[in-house]
Parts: sequence; C-alpha cells; structure tokens
Amino acid sequence: MLGGVGGFGALFRFDPSTHPDPVLVSSTDGVGTKLKVAIELGRHDTIGIDLVHACLNDILVAGADPLFLLDYLAVGTLRAEVVEQIVGGVAAACAAAGIPLIGGETAELPDLVADGDYDLAGFVVGVVARADLLDGSRSRPGDAVIGIPSSGLHTNGYSLARRVLPPETWSSPMPAGDLTIGDTLLEPHRSYLDEVRALRRALRAGGSDLNALAHITGGGWEGNVPRSLPAGLGVEVDTGSWPVPPIFSLIQGRGDIADEEMVRTFNLGIGMTAVVPPDRVDAALDALPDACRIGRVVEVPEGEPRVRFV
Amino acid sequence: MLGGVGGFGALFRFDPSTHPDPVLVSSTDGVGTKLKVAIELGRHDTIGIDLVHACLNDILVAGADPLFLLDYLAVGTLRAEVVEQIVGGVAAACAAAGIPLIGGETAELPDLVADGDYDLAGFVVGVVARADLLDGSRSRPGDAVIGIPSSGLHTNGYSLARRVLPPETWSSPMPAGDLTIGDTLLEPHRSYLDEVRALRRALRAGGSDLNALAHITGGGWEGNVPRSLPAGLGVEVDTGSWPVPPIFSLIQGRGDIADEEMVRTFNLGIGMTAVVPPDRVDAALDALPDACRIGRVVEVPEGEPRVRFV
Repeated sequence: MLGGVGGFGALFRFDPSTHPDPVLVSSTDGVGTKLKVAIELGRHDTIGIDLVHACLNDILVAGADPLFLLDYLAVGTLRAEVVEQIVGGVAAACAAAGIPLIGGETAELPDLVADGDYDLAGFVVGVVARADLLDGSRSRPGDAVIGIPSSGLHTNGYSLARRVLPPETWSSPMPAGDLTIGDTLLEPHRSYLDEVRALRRALRAGGSDLNALAHITGGGWEGNVPRSLPAGLGVEVDTGSWPVPPIFSLIQGRGDIADEEMVRTFNLGIGMTAVVPPDRVDAALDALPDACRIGRVVEVPEGEPRVRFV
Repeated sequence: MLGGVGGFGALFRFDPSTHPDPVLVSSTDGVGTKLKVAIELGRHDTIGIDLVHACLNDILVAGADPLFLLDYLAVGTLRAEVVEQIVGGVAAACAAAGIPLIGGETAELPDLVADGDYDLAGFVVGVVARADLLDGSRSRPGDAVIGIPSSGLHTNGYSLARRVLPPETWSSPMPAGDLTIGDTLLEPHRSYLDEVRALRRALRAGGSDLNALAHITGGGWEGNVPRSLPAGLGVEVDTGSWPVPPIFSLIQGRGDIADEEMVRTFNLGIGMTAVVPPDRVDAALDALPDACRIGRVVEVPEGEPRVRFV
C-alpha cells in the first residue's frame, strides 16, 4: 500500500514475483437484508465483518490470496458514530485477514435510502499463480466432500428468516444456550481464510491438492455446490453427518418450510465445502479440527439434480 | 479475462511485464443523486456510463491504465428490463474503454430501496509502472494548468441542482440549443481516458511528462484541484478563460447561488485539469483540441485558499 494521489485512487504495490503468471481474482458482494437486522437492533459493528468475510470467501474458492479491499456505503443520513461502527467492522476484519482496507466511498443519498437505513457493498482483489488456480477440473467421482461449519446464516436467507422470525421475536432466547434469536441472526459470516490455507498446506505436503471449493452463499446448497464442479458431476450429501445448528430448525419449524426450500436458501451449518481425493480425507480432517466428511462426488446424468441429500 | 470458477470470483490474467514494478490503482464510486434524474425520467441506459467514467477518471489521475471493472446494483424490485438498461450502459462504457466488466452483483433489497429506485456503485482496478505514477510531486510554481471540458455536471452537485431545477422544469428547453433541462442534467460523465493518453504521449515525445492531474468531481474545484498538488502549492484560475456551459449559469441564476458555493459544488465546465511545464503548453494543447490554458500553479501560504479565481 502506497500513499494516495490525493485520494482519487487507492494505490497497492504489487510484487508479481510471489505469484508466477498471476491471475487477479476479484469479487463484489453486499450483505443483503441482514443489514435490516443490524439496523433494527442498532448494532452496527459486526455487519462490516460479514461484508469482508463474504467477499473473501468468494475469492478463496479460486485459490486466491487476498490483496486488498474497498468498501461502498450508502446512507440515508450521515451519522458519524454509525458510519464509524460500520467501517470499524470492515477495517477490523481486513486487519484480521492481513489485508489493507485501501479505499472506499461513503455516499449520502437521502432521496434513495431512508433515514437510519444504509446499504454496504465490498470489493476484494486477490491473486493466485495460474498453476494454483482452483477450478474444479481435477474433481473425480468418488472424491470426498469435506464440510467446514458455518457460524449461522452467514449473509443468506434473511428475507425468509425475517419473515418467519420477525423483530418482535429477537429478544427471546434461543431454544438452547445463552444467546437471543437476535444475537444468533446477527452472528457474523465466518471467514475460511485460515482453514483454506491450512487445508491446502496439509494436502500439498502429501503431494496432492484440493480439487474444488464451494462457498455456500446466496442460493444455498443448490445454488453453490454444483457450480464448483465440472458439468456431469454432483454431490451426494449424507444427511445427519454434521450437526445442523438450532437456528435452522427453528426457522424451518416456525415457518413450516419444506426441506427443498431450506436446501435452496440456507447453508444449514456448512459454509464451505472442499473436494479432496478419497485417500486424503484424514490429512484434510487433521488440518481442520471442526470439519467433517459429509459426502462424495458422484456422476449425475444431465437434467438430474446435482446435489442430493441421502 | 479467464473463465470464472463458477462465478464466485472474477478472474483476470495479469501480465506484469507490461508495467515494471507495478502499482495497482483502484477506486470505488457511485453516481449519487443523479440516479434520481434517470429514475424520474425513466431513462436507465446512460447512468452506467456515468458510473464507469467516474471510476475511470479517478484512477487516470494516478497515471493508471484501467484493467477491469465490477459493478454493484441494489434495486428495490428486480425488473429485468431496467436492470438490462442499467448494466447495458456499464457494459457499453467498459467496452468503449477497452476493459472487461468482469463481475458484479445485483441485490434486491425491498426493505431498503423503494420500488422503482436503485443504487449503483462501481469498482475499477488499473495498473501503472511505479516510475510512471503521477503524484503531483513534480509540480512547480509557474507550471501551466490546462483544463479539459466537461460534458455538464458529470455526477456532482445533483442535490443542489435538483433543488433549484425540480422535475417539473425538466421538460423545458435550455436557454439555447435543442436539449431540454432534463436531457442536459442526464448528460453522461465524460471519460478522459483518450485525452490523458494523448496528452502523456505528446509530452513524453518531447522528453517531459504531465506533472499532475485532477478529476473535478464531488467537492468541485475546491475539493479536488488542491489534493492533486503538494502542500504549499495551489492554482490561480483565470475566470473567463473557458466558456462555462449554460446549465451552470441557469442553476446559479435560478438558485441565486454565490460564486463560492458554485466553486465548491460544480466543475463549471472543466472535468479534468492537467499541470504541465510552462514550455510544454503548446504541445499539450495540440494533443487536446478542445482543451485550453486556464491558469497556473502558484505558491500558497499555509491557511490561504489553494484555488483562487482571478
């Protein structure tokens, strides 16, 4: 990171020698209507963490090392103390990931955003050596699927979750534990930066590598796992192979939601899946204390569903 | 640009040999309340051009060559034909600038954005060889200031402009010419990509270079020209040295706005200023048919205004 040119553009000195034949991997994301949970609870210091982690996970699945992030915040009315909390969360998550929050824009749009509301988007750039790019093409039928736990809903499914669990329920306690429903809904999106690094290091030490990664984000299992694999391949998931966190059963029970809609909407407790050669499962699980084996890669005839819970 | 990994991240193959000791220059920007002009006129095909050009100009001032852009669109209600118009404008402007629109996010946020409204942000990444980075440090008292015309308000001052010229005036014709006030307010932000390239090529052919560039954006003259120069230097601008477009006099006259506020808010017909050595003015103006010499760099004692119209 270099000093800015009057702040018109943000400068980042890039050392190409660290990543031969470099590919820049970028992503933009928002936090969707989870914003409304933060706004209605008046707690603005974690939504920036959600933003950074949602963006980071999207470039991690390509095998990229994150370089820097910019944020865009649109507010109805500029309130310094709220902006400070929001951007403080962004900055803290960037610092924890070891990347600079290199620039950003805060726009006051009173005619477009209601007083007290705001929208937040992020933009992350990372880099990967072309030879290390993960594109799923090495995946084979019989590969094992490892699931890494989520911290909750992450940033997806909040329209449905808020319909089933409206604000008047948020001060109620969860069925078990000390947290309220509101606390649980606001729990930040988990970053998988350390986990992906540990996993890749462990596999490479044994001469293999990850075959694919998927970030279970908007669109749930159905929307994300298939797109990490080549056409003709899908995933068979062992129901019950990991503990589904209580918030999901609460939403499903209160809203009387079909299993199929749950799978299309939520991560159900797994925020990232990793595809590894079957003989490398133990090495992968040794590197990731809280992950578990949750299924396998299978051939899927055209037109059939590419994620099947068995 | 490479094929995506299931669209989680956008991939851009970067050739570091074109820019030795590369510095990545990035910027995020929105189009502010100009959005409301597009929304109320129901014309959504140019606001994406505004977005791309606003972002591009911010990295051009560092001397960067743009590499790629991503967009973020938040809508109240997803209407395919409106999204197509908006993103079509973004894509057209990227194509004209020779860069890929490499990724983006469209978020439907019915609880945050009213039905029919939308917000649009962009993220651009460019690259410059460190030795070619423009940071204003070569600027000297006596350097000439060249102004390159704007196409109108660009993306700034729309809160004030819309207060003085409310929607009921937009179908009225401008004092001269065929355009309505609405057309004039919606005129897209101009890109200075070709101009900056031509200018730099012309100056380098004579063994010199640009000393500084400023993008006259949010904050008008006062907010942007000083930050392109080192502390202790400012600009003396010759009033009347370029034709101020009629939209600015219309706004000033109808709103009875003081000169000082005009200078703090609007570009007044100049969208970019270039600082060049005094003996290179002719070469600069030869390269830029519609630019003119509008002032000079001067020493400014601490605490004095750094932009002075004389």
